Amino acid sequence: VTASSEYDDDTAVTQRAEGSFHTRVTDRWGALGTPVNGGYLLGSCVRALRHSLGRPDPIGVSAFFLQPGQVGEAEITTEVVRAGRRLATGQVSLFQGGTEMLRALADFGDLSVLAGHTQVDNAPPELPPPDDCVDLTAGHSIPGISIVDRVEYRVETPPGWTTGQPSGRAAAAFWMRLRDGRQPDTISLVSLVDAGWPAVLELGVAGSSTVQLSVHVRGRPEPGWLACRVHTQHVIAGMHEEDFEIWDSKGHLVAQSRQLALLTG
Amino acid sequence: VTASSEYDDDTAVTQRAEGSFHTRVTDRWGALGTPVNGGYLLGSCVRALRHSLGRPDPIGVSAFFLQPGQVGEAEITTEVVRAGRRLATGQVSLFQGGTEMLRALADFGDLSVLAGHTQVDNAPPELPPPDDCVDLTAGHSIPGISIVDRVEYRVETPPGWTTGQPSGRAAAAFWMRLRDGRQPDTISLVSLVDAGWPAVLELGVAGSSTVQLSVHVRGRPEPGWLACRVHTQHVIAGMHEEDFEIWDSKGHLVAQSRQLALLTG
Repeated sequence: VTASSEYDDDTAVTQRAEGSFHTRVTDRWGALGTPVNGGYLLGSCVRALRHSLGRPDPIGVSAFFLQPGQVGEAEITTEVVRAGRRLATGQVSLFQGGTEMLRALADFGDLSVLAGHTQVDNAPPELPPPDDCVDLTAGHSIPGISIVDRVEYRVETPPGWTTGQPSGRAAAAFWMRLRDGRQPDTISLVSLVDAGWPAVLELGVAGSSTVQLSVHVRGRPEPGWLACRVHTQHVIAGMHEEDFEIWDSKGHLVAQSRQLALLTG
Repeated sequence: VTASSEYDDDTAVTQRAEGSFHTRVTDRWGALGTPVNGGYLLGSCVRALRHSLGRPDPIGVSAFFLQPGQVGEAEITTEVVRAGRRLATGQVSLFQGGTEMLRALADFGDLSVLAGHTQVDNAPPELPPPDDCVDLTAGHSIPGISIVDRVEYRVETPPGWTTGQPSGRAAAAFWMRLRDGRQPDTISLVSLVDAGWPAVLELGVAGSSTVQLSVHVRGRPEPGWLACRVHTQHVIAGMHEEDFEIWDSKGHLVAQSRQLALLTG
């Protein structure tokens, strides 16, 4: 248990009125090509929406990124679209300087009471234990990419793009956790599916900009390292999807996402 | 070229005012467990939104199904969220009897002018030619499942669930086309990713109800048969994702979707 969490602090929202919240977007989640990682921005939105819907877990979230987020003040508005028995649906928008930067629809529910058929035709990525892996950034800061000071990545071997030798295949597997010791939950998973490096860097491209992101949260994660698998199968005319899986320390799939993105540079 | 298309007729929308449309939901797209297939209902919404946004192609659509659609009159409202250079973002809702049945966010653009890096790490399903395959329903109608009179499915061998012997693996590959000869386009692809049978029928379950559906349209399809691949990897506590790919007659991936669904029955 940590006294304070960077993630919780930086995604905190303050309700101003019914369906109206304030948040402060910090400079601690800068990522490749953007001062504000989209998944981090979405985390604040999901926290506001959880408050409005009164259900504990985001279960399916679809976010559309309209403008790149900026460090500074932001207003968040929420709408309860439908309150059903098992699921509640809501909508959320984040504004900065009067401009809408992000809009999302989401279903929330209580993952602790969902029950029924379980059958998984997949397995966690095969990775050596985290202690036998390499810290991707060796604990070093990277100017502008402040997210690497918040999120720790452990890889079996450094990916090709980090040494100027992209492999030609846009896929990777790695461990991930928040550096401050904050354990994963169903809110942070919505951010973390967007916290990896773009898999397309292995194709030798400069970067990628997320257009839309859909996340399914499939379970409450156990404490510990998260095993991640990322894969882009189709780059077509400069657009690509990216599929991301997160498995918890007990080997259960807890989140999967697909994003649509534009190659940049 | 057909004089009249069932799909075009049944998804037609009439503009009443700026951002306000009327449509008639017909009984010709009934599917397993629902009188109105969700993908069909979404087709009308996407046509209304295309009109409002003034861009030819849906590129990414995320739909949330709030209530099961009903046969009868429906009102559709649209909102232009952002009109960018390459992409325009819009929102659409469909109402029946004053109740919101479906809400979606979507990015539209012009797929004929998108250009850039192309690299595909996947291949169309390996299927014998359609003429060497079997018509899933042998041209027979099925009471309540009127979609089989609109959509033709050709399979190498009938799936296990059709003969009471589910295989235990929620995956399938098959050919698909509209029976009336209407050729696929980027609008109908948004409906067709939801027009297959639920892959989870191979797990011996009774059926499945779509909660949310995200579709990426990756290219304009060539005329002819569509090769489809469907796979559910994670059934967890009665919820599952379903991934769907559509490849056109030239072997190009033209659509991929992921839905989140609840097992029923």
